[in-house]
Formats: sequence, structure tokens, C-alpha cells
Amino acid sequence: MTRIFNFGAGPAMLPESVMKKAQADLLDFKGLGVSVIEVSHRTKEFEGLVDETNQLFRKLSNLPDNYKIIYIHGGAQMQFSAIPLNLIGRSPVKKALFFETGNFAKQAREEASRYGEAKIVASSAATNFDRIPFYEPTDLDDDAAYVHITSNNTIMGTQWKKYPETGALPLVIDATSDMLSQVVDFSQVGVMFASLQKNLGPPGVALVVIREDLLGHALPETPKLLNYELNVKNNSMINTVNTFGIYMVNLVLQWLEEQGGVEAIEVQNRKKAASLYEVIDNSGFYKAFAQLEHRSMMNVPFNLPSEELLAKFLKEALAEGFYALKGHRAVGGARASIYNAMPLAGVEGLRSFMEEFERRNG
Amino acid sequence: MTRIFNFGAGPAMLPESVMKKAQADLLDFKGLGVSVIEVSHRTKEFEGLVDETNQLFRKLSNLPDNYKIIYIHGGAQMQFSAIPLNLIGRSPVKKALFFETGNFAKQAREEASRYGEAKIVASSAATNFDRIPFYEPTDLDDDAAYVHITSNNTIMGTQWKKYPETGALPLVIDATSDMLSQVVDFSQVGVMFASLQKNLGPPGVALVVIREDLLGHALPETPKLLNYELNVKNNSMINTVNTFGIYMVNLVLQWLEEQGGVEAIEVQNRKKAASLYEVIDNSGFYKAFAQLEHRSMMNVPFNLPSEELLAKFLKEALAEGFYALKGHRAVGGARASIYNAMPLAGVEGLRSFMEEFERRNG
Repeated sequence: MTRIFNFGAGPAMLPESVMKKAQADLLDFKGLGVSVIEVSHRTKEFEGLVDETNQLFRKLSNLPDNYKIIYIHGGAQMQFSAIPLNLIGRSPVKKALFFETGNFAKQAREEASRYGEAKIVASSAATNFDRIPFYEPTDLDDDAAYVHITSNNTIMGTQWKKYPETGALPLVIDATSDMLSQVVDFSQVGVMFASLQKNLGPPGVALVVIREDLLGHALPETPKLLNYELNVKNNSMINTVNTFGIYMVNLVLQWLEEQGGVEAIEVQNRKKAASLYEVIDNSGFYKAFAQLEHRSMMNVPFNLPSEELLAKFLKEALAEGFYALKGHRAVGGARASIYNAMPLAGVEGLRSFMEEFERRNG
Repeated sequence: MTRIFNFGAGPAMLPESVMKKAQADLLDFKGLGVSVIEVSHRTKEFEGLVDETNQLFRKLSNLPDNYKIIYIHGGAQMQFSAIPLNLIGRSPVKKALFFETGNFAKQAREEASRYGEAKIVASSAATNFDRIPFYEPTDLDDDAAYVHITSNNTIMGTQWKKYPETGALPLVIDATSDMLSQVVDFSQVGVMFASLQKNLGPPGVALVVIREDLLGHALPETPKLLNYELNVKNNSMINTVNTFGIYMVNLVLQWLEEQGGVEAIEVQNRKKAASLYEVIDNSGFYKAFAQLEHRSMMNVPFNLPSEELLAKFLKEALAEGFYALKGHRAVGGARASIYNAMPLAGVEGLRSFMEEFERRNG
């Protein structure tokens, strides 16, 4: 079968050139005659790859020098445990603050409550998370260790357009679904983390950036491999790292640089989301889920007039090569996930299909 | 460069046919037109793969029905935390027992001491772990939650020929470097786990088998993703699993079945280790590290008469296509790791090279 356009929310599509390079080199890493998955993580070849990947990430994200980059097994949900284990001890009353903007913010809060008080600052649960909730800066307790947000909500298709003002409190950002998709202001960021499987690579690892001054507060019960300070000291190599995951991040970052970096990909991402929302908003047929001012550039959930039409839409879309457009059960409908790797051609193709489907069924 | 024989201790070589299949199919998983690393872990195609992999593992290992199979992010060292977090609560005094047979046994014990008392039953530290230590069954405290052993010690090349008798105490086996390399008697086994990167696949994941009756004792501070009961309930899919890792396990297990299963591979593994030890023992030149009766079938560490000859040996071996023969710094010398995937031809080639090197330099 020929390659298709994969609109899945994650694990998501990777750039085709990246996949082809990974395929071509799979049996021979840097001319050693062994695969990247068969080589020791302690070789100079692999350690060189990690250093190069860190430098590339730093350059592309414009990460300030006082932030460290580490890779931890387990994706973002392992970080839901690691974050409080490493940071909640900074608060004299072991308190952390959460903006409840969707499923993953809820899960992160539940996990943090295992280790201290996990307080909701504001929530949009009442409207099924169709927006980023309103809050007053005075809602933020000074004695908290940090403020946790999900920068982009994959399921509901909402996104913080500007991070909340948290004063002296470090902001912890679950950027799983929008890391490196747009230019970021790190001035308030304490920790930013992401699973790889949206914009960075295959699932199984989280990339974590952490401001140096936040290290050193891990609770005694922190599993060794989740300890940020220990990971920083060992350059993520406390044990055998996920070599394939980091290798793929390296290839994806090289590709991103070739595209012109984050500034250029942000322009394209804005264009892609605007293009799909234009069809939806100009139609009496498709209906957007997320509120206008909080719409994500990464995930576009929308519905059709009936379940029958939805089923027909998904089936015909798949036949045309538009894969994995089914929405999450919490929202229903359809969802187009359009991360960095989704080319404009994929979005334009889907847009044409949507217009044509409306003409036939509207 | 042509493929070579990789004697690295891990990440280790995988069967060439497995690597070629992974390469051929990397851009198209089961005809979906997307890669196995770009497909949702919740699709019927991927869930089917997990089920198939579990069935294959069960069949090949002859695993009794009352054991569950789960995949957890992070390799064996994440299990060094997960094991006490899930099991030590079974003991009224939160105690676990350890056989100290090498570096990884030590690390597992240190990590367990975070959550309770981690007591050494017996140790071979005094002889730099060149043997499995002697013990009396009466050394095992009845009030312990479990007894932890490392079935094969990668660095020192020692291996338990028969698991210790632990009576009613469940045996927890770190089988990272010998899982599926020989037939196993599960009668005393409570938990058996392994990183993938020796005999099973790429690094980043541990395969864990756990006896059902041991579930349900997790400490409250257990991170969600490390909770065995939760993993069993969710068929390892609490969050996005390491899809590539499980996919590779599937291919490796299929290959193992084609080789005639564990019984057949055990015969070959015995032959490979015996062949190398024959050269070593018949020589006044090479010197084995591990004591005769505790020698591993997976890792063969040996030394040469001088550091100069060792350096020359490693350099010439590499030029002949025998890769990663350098021993671990804790032992020095050379080490041939000969896991399941190392073909007899690789061992015979190395053997000839060793004999020839001795003739020229002995």
C-alpha cells in the first residue's frame, strides 16, 4: 500500500524523509556495521548523537542556557509522577496548582495528589473543556511549588495562546502536543516536557527541559530513573536509554532545521489550522468543537450533522487516503491532527475532500 | 560497511533476519500505509500484535496460566524501583532479601532500600563476584516479601545453574541477560523481568511476568505507570506503550520459534559457551574470570597476559569484524556476549581468531 496522510492524534505521522532515512540506515549506524538499536549507548558514536541532538534542540527552541535537557523513559504520563516527585518538595506545604483544561491535565493532577495537595486554579470542565478557563492572577497561592498547564489539549483541540502569568511560581508545561510547533517564551517556564509521539519521534520517551535552579528537591521515594538531578548528572544515561527514540528525535530535529526551524514551521502550522477552520466556519455542515479564541493549531476537532454522516465521512476519507480522522470518544465527531510533520498538501487534500463531501451530503 | 559479529553486552545484536524484516516493513505496518511507530496503540492492528506477542511468549517460555505478562517503560532498572513498590508491602516489616552477585544486584538492593529493609542473604563481593555465593536455606527470613536474584550477571559472566530454594517466599528474578535463553522452572518464581536489549529487542522497555496472587500490594507512592495491577488491568496500555519495542519483541519471538524454540536455542547456547571456554581453558594464554561451576552461557569474560596484548587483541579482532569485545571496567579484559541472536558462525569465527592470535602472540 502507498503511504497515506495520517491525521492520527498520536502516535502521529513523522516526516516521510525522516522515515526513509531511518529505514535506509536501520542496519548500519554511522558506518559501524550494527544498528542504532544494537549499539551501546556508551559508545562515542551514540553519546555524540545525544550531544548533537541536545545542541539542535537548544538552537531550534531558543532554549536559554540555564535549562538542562534530559530524556526519560515513559512518555508524558511518567512525568505526571516525576514532576511532583521532583518539585512538590519545594513547597513548604507540598502544594501544586493545576489548570484543568482536559483529560491529561486531570490525570496529571490526580497523580500529583499522590504526593501532596494538587489544587485546581481554574477549570473548563463545565463546558466539556471547549476553552481555556478564565482565572485571576490572585487565584495563584504563593506557597505552591509550581503551576501545571497543558499547553495544547489534544482531545478538545484547545491551546493556550499565551501562558498564564504566574509571577514567581515556576510554570510546568506539558507540551506533549505542541513542543517545537511555535516560538515559545521561556521567561516563566520552570519545566517543559513532551512525549515524543506527536512532534518529535516514536512513543516511549519524554524530552524534559528543566531550569537548573529547580533541581535538587526530589522526594526520598522518587524512583532513581525519575530523579531529574540524577538524570542531569548522568546526561540521561543512568541506565540504557531508549536509543532508537533519541535517534529519531535527532532525525526529526534535522528535518525541522531544514524546514527553516520553529519560526517557519509556526507560519505553516498557522496556515494549516486556518485552512481547515475556514472550511468548517464557512459551512453550515461542519461544526467546530473548540471556542474560537482558544483553538489549537495542532488538533482540529469538528462534528457533522449526524452520526450516520460522520460514519460515512470517516469511511470515505479513509478510502481517499486520509487516515485516523475519528475523534476521541470524550468529544465525538472527527478530528484532524496536524502536527509539524503534516504537509500542507495533506491539509489541502483534506480540505478539498471536506468541501466535496459537504456538496454531496449537505 | 558490511554487517559484523557484534559481541556487545547490550544493547546487543538482534537476528539479522529480524532486522531486515523490520527494515523492509518500517514504513508500512500491516498494510495500513503508516509505520508501526506512527500508528495508534489503540488500533485493532496494534492491540492484535500485543496479544499475539503475549501468546508467543507464553508458548515459548512455557509460562503457567497464573502468570500475567506486561510491558513497562524503562528497562530493568525501572523495575529495581517497581519491584519493591509493588511487592515489599506484602511483608509486615517491609523487608526484601537479596543475593548480591554483581553490579545490578547491588543497584537493585540500593533502590529497594528506599522503600524498606533490603537485606543481603549472601554475597560474592569478596571475590569480585566471580561466583554465585554459597548460602543456607535457613538464611532466608520468613517475614520477607520476596527474594531477589540476578539470574545471569552480564559483567562477571556468572549464572545461577539452579535457582535458590526459597520455600514460600516468591523469587523475583532479574533475567535481563538470560530470558528465553534456556528452559526455566517457574515453580518458585513470583516475578521475572528483563530489559529487552539482550535477548528480546531494543532498549527502553521491560517485559515483566508476574504471578497473579502477588498483585494488589502496591505502596501508595507507586507512580501510576509502575503499578503492576494497573498495568495488568490495562493490558500494559495505561498510556502510549513503546510500540516499536513490542513490535521488535514480536519479530524476535517469531524468529525464536523458527529456530525450534527455547529448547533448541538452549542447546545452541550451551554449545557456543562451551566452544569459547574450551579455547580459554586449553590455553595458557587466555584466562577465564568466572569460577568453573558458575559460568554463564551468555557472557564469557576472559583476560590476556598483558594490557598491551589485550589492546592488540581488541584492535585486531575489530579489524576482523568481531565488534565490542572489550570487557567491563569492573573486571577488565575482554568479554564475548553470546546471546540467542549470536550465530554459531560468529562464535566459531571468534574461536579461530583467538587460537590464531595465541599462536602469533603466545
